[in-house]
Parts: sequence; structure tokens; C-alpha cells
Amino acid sequence: MHALVYTGTQQLVYREEKNPKITNGESIVKVSASGICGSDMHAYHGKDSRRIPPLILGHEISGTINEGKFAGKKVILNPLITCGECDYCKNGKEHLCGKRIILGMNRPIERQGGFAEYVSIPDRNVYELPKTLEIKEAPIAEPTAVALHAVELGEKELSKPLRDVKALVIGGGAIGLLSGLILSKIKKCKEIVIADPNNKRLKECSRYLDGEAVNPDSKSIIDNHFDIVFDTVGLEITRQQAIKVVKPGGVIIHIGLTQPSGNFDFRKATLQEITFVGTYCYTNKDFEKTLSILADKQIGSLNWIEYRKLKDGSLAFQEIHNGSCSAPKIILLI
Amino acid sequence: MHALVYTGTQQLVYREEKNPKITNGESIVKVSASGICGSDMHAYHGKDSRRIPPLILGHEISGTINEGKFAGKKVILNPLITCGECDYCKNGKEHLCGKRIILGMNRPIERQGGFAEYVSIPDRNVYELPKTLEIKEAPIAEPTAVALHAVELGEKELSKPLRDVKALVIGGGAIGLLSGLILSKIKKCKEIVIADPNNKRLKECSRYLDGEAVNPDSKSIIDNHFDIVFDTVGLEITRQQAIKVVKPGGVIIHIGLTQPSGNFDFRKATLQEITFVGTYCYTNKDFEKTLSILADKQIGSLNWIEYRKLKDGSLAFQEIHNGSCSAPKIILLI
Repeated sequence: MHALVYTGTQQLVYREEKNPKITNGESIVKVSASGICGSDMHAYHGKDSRRIPPLILGHEISGTINEGKFAGKKVILNPLITCGECDYCKNGKEHLCGKRIILGMNRPIERQGGFAEYVSIPDRNVYELPKTLEIKEAPIAEPTAVALHAVELGEKELSKPLRDVKALVIGGGAIGLLSGLILSKIKKCKEIVIADPNNKRLKECSRYLDGEAVNPDSKSIIDNHFDIVFDTVGLEITRQQAIKVVKPGGVIIHIGLTQPSGNFDFRKATLQEITFVGTYCYTNKDFEKTLSILADKQIGSLNWIEYRKLKDGSLAFQEIHNGSCSAPKIILLI
Repeated sequence: MHALVYTGTQQLVYREEKNPKITNGESIVKVSASGICGSDMHAYHGKDSRRIPPLILGHEISGTINEGKFAGKKVILNPLITCGECDYCKNGKEHLCGKRIILGMNRPIERQGGFAEYVSIPDRNVYELPKTLEIKEAPIAEPTAVALHAVELGEKELSKPLRDVKALVIGGGAIGLLSGLILSKIKKCKEIVIADPNNKRLKECSRYLDGEAVNPDSKSIIDNHFDIVFDTVGLEITRQQAIKVVKPGGVIIHIGLTQPSGNFDFRKATLQEITFVGTYCYTNKDFEKTLSILADKQIGSLNWIEYRKLKDGSLAFQEIHNGSCSAPKIILLI
């Protein structure tokens, strides 16, 4: 099969690879579309210890079952594979399973990803494509589930409903925009600021999101002002902004993983009782809820997604890296 | 009046000071007992920007009303003075009030503290001493309220009851021991580890707390093991231990303020969905609940408190500084 293979830092090669083989309880999917995620970019930069070259990246995947129980069905994949038996799995927190693995990773266990013609997946990670959702846009389900999980973790922490809070979203990538759209269109939050240094992206976000789209140094980002801050970037500098602008008793939801450690103002976190919540992926329930959100078009138009061909994937990674790409999400079509 | 005055880094002088004057809505308290808090130690080390010498420290106070509405009554003081009018004050979160001030601070507003014969206090910060509580041990109410607030913030975050969790308390000072006692005796938590490098203190803690008292490098402090970790120290190194040993989906409650910033593993916080909660003081409700806990002897014997005379206060500070003092709490008697 053809596949886009991550072969080294900032190197992707479109080449012939061996087809995946079917195993018990699994299916082979003929991939239709595969989205590029921030964590793929992180791997591309040589900074992800879970993704070591050579590897086929990609875990936001839609396609048609080629071999397996549901052969012929159009599907969306939940790429988070878990043991199903531990306390986390049994209590609806599958995403915290100690044996979890995601498609397009090879540490601790190898699972080739979706930037290829075919990919293997356990049957229980397969969801039927809702009729109202186009197969090419369906990979957006995965980051939407990430954003939904993050927003609802924040919702649980707040002492007032999301519709009444001031929210700041740091980062205008897919997770930032999707968090903003869920806050606005589903949770009815009326005061949303979204911040990104890339003006092209901001413009794109502001076409779809009912909020204020600004640069990170904007005067709209007031100190001690926001009830909740979503850091979808995860740099030392974005975390430092988050803690500066969150108000006493407020909440920081931390989704990004760009810089794994760094300095932080624990004094304010303590004296002002800030709650900092790390968030990762989604539960199975979140994934199912996301599919119904997308089927019902609850987050509006998905025209902010840009589509490229898999064979041109290397250029897409490069453009995201350069910042010359304005789209919050690029999906590769196979 | 006589007072123990903080005159410079590691300098305390017992000397004559002006008596406080009564103002509208306030009382003058003849102080009976005044506890030494970690934050007083922080000031003593010249590291608290809210406590600038010369200043009378001390905010854990019991005594008798000398002048004012309740003259003659034996009282415990809630040293956290708030505006009573802001959103925080009106919604039971007085401790987050933007105008809050604590006795024994002089930034942004001066309020002389309790290491003196007399102290002034707003009438609404005065609580009657429960009959079953000795006036000399009553200052323990303040740190007990801090610990209760911290434990109950943690309780809200957990997905299972405190009686079923594994808890680590970092630090065997008053806040650490009190958090442990509340966890054990009130919340019925059965698996508590308390860690401190000071073996004398550990021994003292283990006499009162039904838990394992260990050094910070003990094998009992297992990585990814604890549902909840209380960092009552707040050093970079204790926060790093907290994030290392908390289990996926777990909670860190951060009470200490020793090191205001520092490096932290945000990667684990994110990938393992750790919730980090800063906690500060207590609400009025917490303070009232604490008084009934102490009145009912719910946390058991308070014989771990050591008593000294106010005039010998300087030596007590020195011994706490040196680590030669084993008591988790020293209360100065006036």
C-alpha cells in the first residue's frame, strides 16, 4: 500500500509499505481521510518519545471496513485502544488505562497510523459514520472529542454554568477552535476570547466562532479576569499567561503538550486557589457524544477544514510548521 | 504593651509597643495564646512580600475581649478580614476576596498580629470559645480550618470517597499533621502516608496519626500510586514528588508556599489527567465547622502542641528554623 512515512525529524516520505494484517477481533479499514494533529507535528519535530521513526503517523481516521466483521461499512475510528479490563476501563475512564495506545504510535507498543491506504483497528474502536456527516470531514470527530472532554472537565470544576463565564482559549488550532465552538454553540458561553499569534488563523477562527479573536499580547486579555482558561498550546509561556489572566478561584484546562515542563507561578495558584486540570483524549462516552454532536451539526459549518492529498502530506506538515497555513485543521485524503 | 516584633530577617525582639486603638465595629482582644505558623516562618526568613519589618506577626489567636461589644468573652479569632461586599464574600468564598487581609501582615494594608498582649479585630471575626476547648490550645483552630478546607477541596475533586483512597501528605508540620488527622479521624481514610525529612517530627506525628510516617525517600512512596497528595510544604522538590507519585486521574492539593515558582512535569499532568488545586485559608463556614470539630474533640488529643512564653518567642522561631524542634506546632502564651 501507499503510505506517508515519518522517517526522521521533519522528514516524511510517501512510499510503498506492507499492508497491515488482520488479527482476531480486529478489522482492516480502507482509509478515506486522515487528519493531521498537533501531536503528529510534535512527532515530526522529533519531540515525541512515543513516536519514533520510521512510523506511519495519523490517528484521526475515517474509511470503509475492508476486511472484518463489518466489511463494507463506512466508519470513524476511535484510535484510543485500551485494555477493557482495568479499573479505569471498567469505570468509564478508558483514556487513563495503563495499557492505552493510540494509532500512529510505536512506544510502548507499535500501532501504525492512518496516513496510509489501510490501517488495522480493534472492532470495538469502530463507529458507524453518521449519515449526515461526510466521510472526508469525519476525522474531525477525534479532535472534537478531545475538545468536548476538555470543556466538560472545565464545566465540572466551575462554580457557575459555562453560559455565565468569561473564557479564554489560548491557541487557534483545531483543539482551540473546537473548544471555542463547543463553548459557544453547545454550552452557550457568551464571553469567549481566542488568542493566537498567527493572524491568518485568527481570521479563519473569527469567521466561524462567535468570540473575540486576538493576538496573545492584546489588551483584551486582562489579568485576573477569566473564570476559565483553556491552554491548547502547552508552552511555558502560554501556561504563564494562563495563570496570570485567570481570576481568583478560576480554572486552567491544560490540553497542549508542546513544552513538557517549565516554570509556573505556584504562588498565585495557591494564594488565589486556581485549579489546574490536565486533560488527555476522551472517554468512550465522550466519543459517542461527539458523533451525535457532529451528526446534528451542533458546532456549525466545518468549512474551516482544509483538504490535501496524502501524497502531498509532507508539504502540508511543512506549511503547518512554517505557519504559512491558515487552516486550523488539514485532513489528508487517501 | 509587650510584643514580639519582627524587626528584620531572622530577628525578633520582645519589646514595648503601642497598644492598638479601638475603632468602630471592632474590638480589642487581650491575647491569651498565639500560634507560630509556617507563613510567620516565611516572613522570618525575609521571604514574604506581604510581611515587611517592623511588624508584629501572628494570626492564630485566642484571648478575652478587653474592649468592645463582647467585653469579657473568651474568644477565638478568625484572622482573615474581608470586605463582605464583593461577589466572593457574598457567595461564601470570603477567602478569595480581593481586599482580604490577615492579622500580622502589613501589605497591602497594615494589621498588627497576635504576638502581643493586645490585638484589634473586627467584631464579625470573633468567635466564642467552645466550653470544651482550652483557651491555650484554641489557636489551633486557624490551621485546622486551613487543613479542613484543603481536605474538603480534595474530597470534591475525587471520584471516590476519601475513606477508599490512598493519600500521601507531604510535610509533618501542623498543616500536614492536621490534614492527616482530618483524613483519618473525620473522613475515615485508611491508607495515609505522611512524609517529612525530620525524624523527630515524624515520631511525634506517628504518636497521634493512624498512618505511616516516613522520610521523603521511603520505598512506601510509590510512583503513580496515590489518589490524592497534599503538598503542605510547597517546595519545587515536593511538588515534583507530588506529581511523580500521584496516580493517573489523581489530585494534588497544594497548600505550602515555601517556593513560589519552579519547574513541574506538565507532561504527566496532561497525559495522566492530574488535577492540581491551590488552596488558601478557609471560608467562614469552614472556620465555624472547625470550631465544632475541635469542641467535639473529633481530631483527638492536641498534646502534640508545645507551649512557650511570648518573651521566649525568638528562641522558638530559631528552633523551628534549625529543625531542632520536634513539635508540629508551637503556641506562645502571653
